[in-house]
This record gives sequence, C-alpha cells and structure tokens, in this order.
Amino acid sequence: MVQELVLSNRPVDAHLHVRQGKMLELVAPITARYFSYAVIMPNTHPPICTPDSINSYRAEILRSTAGNPFKPLMTFKILSDFDSKLVPAMKEAGAIAGKVYPKGLTTNAEDGVSDFFALFPVFEAMQKAGLVLCLHGEMPGDEIEGLDRETAFLRTLYFIAKTFPYLKIVMEHITTEAAVDAILQLPANVAATITVHHLLLTYDDVGGDRMRVHNWCKPIAKRKRDRDALIEAAISGCPKFFFGSDSAPHPEEKKRSEECCAGCFTAPVCLPLLAEIFEQHNALPRLEQFVVRSAAIFYELSFPMPPHTPQLTLVKQPMVVPLKIEEVVPFWAGKEISWSIKKE
Amino acid sequence: MVQELVLSNRPVDAHLHVRQGKMLELVAPITARYFSYAVIMPNTHPPICTPDSINSYRAEILRSTAGNPFKPLMTFKILSDFDSKLVPAMKEAGAIAGKVYPKGLTTNAEDGVSDFFALFPVFEAMQKAGLVLCLHGEMPGDEIEGLDRETAFLRTLYFIAKTFPYLKIVMEHITTEAAVDAILQLPANVAATITVHHLLLTYDDVGGDRMRVHNWCKPIAKRKRDRDALIEAAISGCPKFFFGSDSAPHPEEKKRSEECCAGCFTAPVCLPLLAEIFEQHNALPRLEQFVVRSAAIFYELSFPMPPHTPQLTLVKQPMVVPLKIEEVVPFWAGKEISWSIKKE
Repeated sequence: MVQELVLSNRPVDAHLHVRQGKMLELVAPITARYFSYAVIMPNTHPPICTPDSINSYRAEILRSTAGNPFKPLMTFKILSDFDSKLVPAMKEAGAIAGKVYPKGLTTNAEDGVSDFFALFPVFEAMQKAGLVLCLHGEMPGDEIEGLDRETAFLRTLYFIAKTFPYLKIVMEHITTEAAVDAILQLPANVAATITVHHLLLTYDDVGGDRMRVHNWCKPIAKRKRDRDALIEAAISGCPKFFFGSDSAPHPEEKKRSEECCAGCFTAPVCLPLLAEIFEQHNALPRLEQFVVRSAAIFYELSFPMPPHTPQLTLVKQPMVVPLKIEEVVPFWAGKEISWSIKKE
Repeated sequence: MVQELVLSNRPVDAHLHVRQGKMLELVAPITARYFSYAVIMPNTHPPICTPDSINSYRAEILRSTAGNPFKPLMTFKILSDFDSKLVPAMKEAGAIAGKVYPKGLTTNAEDGVSDFFALFPVFEAMQKAGLVLCLHGEMPGDEIEGLDRETAFLRTLYFIAKTFPYLKIVMEHITTEAAVDAILQLPANVAATITVHHLLLTYDDVGGDRMRVHNWCKPIAKRKRDRDALIEAAISGCPKFFFGSDSAPHPEEKKRSEECCAGCFTAPVCLPLLAEIFEQHNALPRLEQFVVRSAAIFYELSFPMPPHTPQLTLVKQPMVVPLKIEEVVPFWAGKEISWSIKKE
C-alpha cells in the first residue's frame, strides 16, 4: 500500500520570491499550484515600497496564477528613509508585512538598512497598524564575517522585540542554533521561518568541502549542529517556527557566473523534500503544523481557501528533480526524492 | 623614481601543479620564466608514484620549459599501499620529496590516505633516504567539517614529527592560526608553505559573503584572524615558512560547473601580488627570505641556477591581470596589481 499524507489545507509559504516579468510568469504558477498563501518578498527592482507598487505587483502575480486557489500576501520593503506616516497607506493597499533587508547582504539589497534603530518610528507605526515585521536577520558591516552575521544580529532582534512588545516579528530563514534559541526565549509574537534547503545543507555543501553554486544562498548554510537545531525546531510542532521556502530563482548563467547570485529555487521541490525530511525524523504527523497551521495562526489566515480545494496529498512515490526548468536550475536538480505530490 | 626590488636569485615555488599534456604546455613555461626551482606536485592522473613516471614527467616538464633557467624538483605520490622498499628507487630517480594526500579532499585525491599511521614504514624509509615528506594537512572523514580539517590534522603532524625526528616535513598551504602556531612549536625540520591566495582571501571571498568560483581552493580559506596569522608568518623572515604557490589551473568550464574544481591559478600573478602584500606590511626587505632563501635552505638548493640569470627584479609599476589565459581564468583576473616583474 502506498503511503500517503493528507494535508487538510494547502500549505503556506511564508517567504517567497516570485521576481518579475518572464521569471514571475515561470515561477509564480509553480507555487500557486500547490500552496494556498505565500508571503511575497518585495526586493524587486525597483522595490515594492509604495501603495501603488503593492497593487500593481499583486495584479501581476494574480494574472500569472489565475485559476489557482492561491492568494499572494503582499509585503513592502522598508528602506532606510521609509516614512513611518506611509504605514497606514501600505496597510490600506493590502500589505500584511514590511520587510527589512540589511545593506548589501542579498539580492537587490544595495538599498538596505545599516541602522536598525533609525527605523523605530516605522516599527512603532507598524505595531499600531497591526502589520508584521519581517527581518532578514543578519548584521551588515565589514567588521563582521559572513558566518557570524546572523548570531551578531540577535541582540538587535531583542532590542526590537523588547521595545515593541505588541509587534509581530518574523526572523526569516534562520540558519543557526543560536537563532533557534533566541526565538524560543522571546514571546509568542516573535517567530521564525525555516527553509527546506537549510534543513539539508551545511557550509560544506556550499563552499567548504564542496562548492556547489546552486546551493549558495543567504544566509549561508552553517555547521552540522546548526542544521540539527533547525531540524529540531521544524519538526517540533512549536508554532514559533514555520515554513518559508525563500525560493529564489536566478537564471542559470547568473548562478554559474564569476560571482554567483544568492538563492536556491526550491518551489518545485520543497514539499516532497519536507515530507522526506519529516519522515526521516519520524515526524510526518507534525508536517501540517510546520507547513500550514503555524504560519496560518501567526498571519491570521483563514481556511479553507477557497473552499473547493481544501487539501493536498503527498504520496511516497519517488520523483526525479528536473535538471532545468526553462532557464532556471531547481534545487536538488537531478536527484531523486522519495515523496511527491499526488496528482488531483 | 620607480621603486624596484631586486631578488638576488630567482624565486622558488615550493608547491606547484603543472598538470599534464596541453595544460602543462600552457602553465609550466609561465612558472619557468620567473622561478629557478619548483616542487612539482604528483597528483596527476595517473599519479606520479614510480621511478619511471618521475622520469617521464620530468622529461615532459623539461620539454615545455626548455631555454629557461628552471629546474623542476620532482615528488612522488604516497598512496596508501605504497611499498616502503620503493623509496630508494624514487630517490635514485631524482625525487626530492614524497607527498601524502588525504583521501577525497582535493583534485585526484580519491586514491588518498585515511590512515596516516599505516604509512610509518614509508616515512621511516624516507627519513633514512633523506627525502622530504610533504603533507596536505587536512584530516579526511565525514565526521569532520571542512573548516575544521586542518586544525584536526595537527595532532597527526605532531605524531609524525615526534616519531621521525630527522624526517624533513613540510605542511603544505597552511590556512589557520593554529597551524602557524604548531609549525612554530615544532623543530627546524618541520616547515610550512604558504600560498599567495591564502594571504589575500578569507572564506567570505570564497563562499561566505561572496561566492567566487575562481577563489575556491583546498584547504578553503578561513577567517580573518587566520589570514592575519599567515601574513605574520610570511613576512616574519622565519625560515620555517616559505612560499609555495599551489598554483592549480583548471579549465574555466570546470570552475564554473555545477560542482567547482578546487584550485587557484596564481602562477602568472603570485610574485607581483607578494610584492604588493609585503609592501603593504612594510616587509619588502624580507620578501627574498620568503620566496627564495627559506625554501632554498630547507630543500638544500644551490644558487645561482644557472649562473647566467641570477636575479629577478620586481618593479612598482601597475599590471592588470588578464581575464583569461587561453582556457584558464587566472587568480585576480581583471584586477590591478601595483607591482610587476621587470622585463629583462
């Protein structure tokens, strides 16, 4: 008998890059086919940081995902000169969160922030408006080394969380044991997303023992003990940790170039990979908590959405990841995953 | 007035990969043009591990470097089944050193060693024959992470050094503060080579903050404090630390591939880069110690070799590193170096 896992509602991707233009047309439908909601990252070029850009970006996504029971959850990018008076208008335009990128640390983050404290008026306004603050939790600056940036950011997370006790905060794509522990120590309004690739990779799969450009992402994967702590958090059932793929496609030539672009395109493989990982850790019964319920509670999402496609079934049947999806090499390309998504 | 630095003898590259066939014809003359001696690594395919292969590899190198005042110093690869009785024949064939590669850790090291103690009869024979033992000082094994392999190897270095007190040992291409300290604590017959790229890079230039395939080498570059310790050792004038480029060319497509090949092709740029680094640290007067004298003393080389071209002059005139040398992207491609080699 084939093993099946029925998710009673379609998953939520709490951290997704769908890019723009032709790339959006390629990647947004892949997520929309299987997910109910996705929190859409605003680091496009130019960034999503006005009510108008939220509306037009949402319209672009809805055009490409029409016919799917899928809702994009819009966010705006909090640049260092962001005017806190704009916050109510962002909410009016339907944004559910604002995202802070540290200066220079990831794709299109040249306009990012180096002084987080200068944004406190914005955080104050977001707390009042009931918007979620999403943080790329790495400290910028030449004096800090890449492997230390996330740990170096945790005090700043505490300063923000303790200053704005009613602000919902998500530390995105955490990669360290130290971050897991910090999230656990902070109250329920502070949560974290975890990607599927950080449950699989260590630094040695990226640029240590092996250099594989398609595994390179920000924050960079850390040590085995860090990966083990992330797995423990993901499979725990604790509502403070939920799935955000950070699926971040780049054309193959930008990954293989002299200087690689950061990001793993996990959207086509993340659910089968999660099923495989959760099964390996005897935690399949808690997969729905990680990929649906915890984010749904945190972001106050309603299910079923829409009512005619309430569920998704994962099935223990192997799939082989394609080597390429148009111009993009997906994460885990060419490898076999022991689970797949059941055809409706 | 243009600043010049006259090396009274041509430099010694105590660690060089010249590869085979067409690649050898491309890269060996580049080193032969400026260096007097180079210690030639034996990790070809098949490996250099018999007297015959030493003789034919030397002949191949001499064909490609004819007309230059250059002498290749031949080494043999110590495979895990190497018969210690062969050592005298290797010396007879002109080998000056044997090299141990840990299993699986670098180019063509699938046949490398995991049990260093099993080689003690070979080391005993080499001590007796007066051959140098060259070590790629990283500990193999899945239980060790890439960033820790060199530090994890240091106890093995001590075991070997204390068991064979008259064996000359070179720990190659050291990358950590811990290795610098270990070499300093061991007696004069234990030395280390340092590459130019490890004086410049940290892992943030390789796969941390930035992923640059042409910077990726083994052992991987470590932290800033490690790089600072290597610089301190290189400029110190201490004869236990000398230059070995580990120049390791790969065709561009093998660097940019899905899984990058390890190695930086530094032969065309290492001397100007070293002059720049030594000048930055007010250590130009000690450059000759690092690139000529220390290795010459350790390997008991004679100068001038040959007498008609005794010297090399570095001059403070900028050079721009070519983007490509035939099919190989050189280290520091496209960048300017403030020093160059004076045309004769």
